[in-house]
Amino acid sequence: MDNCVFCKIRKGEIPGTILYKDEDFMIIKNIAPSSKVHLLAIPTEHAPFIADISEKSAELLGKMMSKISHMQEELGLTNGYRLIINQGEDAGQTVSHIHIHIMGGEKLAEF
Amino acid sequence: MDNCVFCKIRKGEIPGTILYKDEDFMIIKNIAPSSKVHLLAIPTEHAPFIADISEKSAELLGKMMSKISHMQEELGLTNGYRLIINQGEDAGQTVSHIHIHIMGGEKLAEF
Repeated sequence: MDNCVFCKIRKGEIPGTILYKDEDFMIIKNIAPSSKVHLLAIPTEHAPFIADISEKSAELLGKMMSKISHMQEELGLTNGYRLIINQGEDAGQTVSHIHIHIMGGEKLAEF
Repeated sequence: MDNCVFCKIRKGEIPGTILYKDEDFMIIKNIAPSSKVHLLAIPTEHAPFIADISEKSAELLGKMMSKISHMQEELGLTNGYRLIINQGEDAGQTVSHIHIHIMGGEKLAEF
C-alpha cells in the first residue's frame, strides 16, 4: 500500500536494515528495539489483520516461523526466542501490516 | 508424549478447560492467566520446537492463527489480541510442547 512503511522498506523507497528477503517475506531490524535482538518478519502481502487474509496466506505465517527457527543461530537467538503478533488496539498494533516480532539475544521478561 | 501436560489434557487424562478442539489443535484456558483473557492454542502434534517440525506442520501454526482470528468475538477479544510463542530458555518456555499464547480482553502492556 502507498503509505505503508513496511511496503516502502521492501521496495527500497525508505531505508531499513533487511537481514533476509525472499518472495514471501523479509526480516528487518526493529528501529526501536525492546530487547537485545528485536527483529520483524513481514510478509510481502499487505494486510492489517490475519482475519483479512486467506487461509493460504495465513499458512505462510507458519512457514515464516519455520524459516526463522532454522535461522536461529545466524539471527543471534542461540538460547531461544519469542515470536509476537499484535492485532488491533488492545495489543497496541502500531503498523497496519501484519508482522511478527522476533525477540531474544537475552533472557526476556515474563508476561 | 507420556509426561506432557498438554497431551494429557487433550486425551482427558487431566482436567483442562477446552474451548475449542479439532483434529489439528485445541484452545484451552491458561490456568495462570497474565491478562483478562489468556488462552493457549496447542497443536495435537507433540514437539518442543518449531525447528523440530516439518514445514507442513509449521504451516498449521498459521492455520491455527487464522482460525483464532475468526473466533475473535467468541473468545472475548473484540478489541484485538496478542499471539506469543516462546521458544527455549531465553523466552521462558515452560512446557516442551509448542503452544501459542492468546492474550487480550483488555489493553495489554507494551513490551
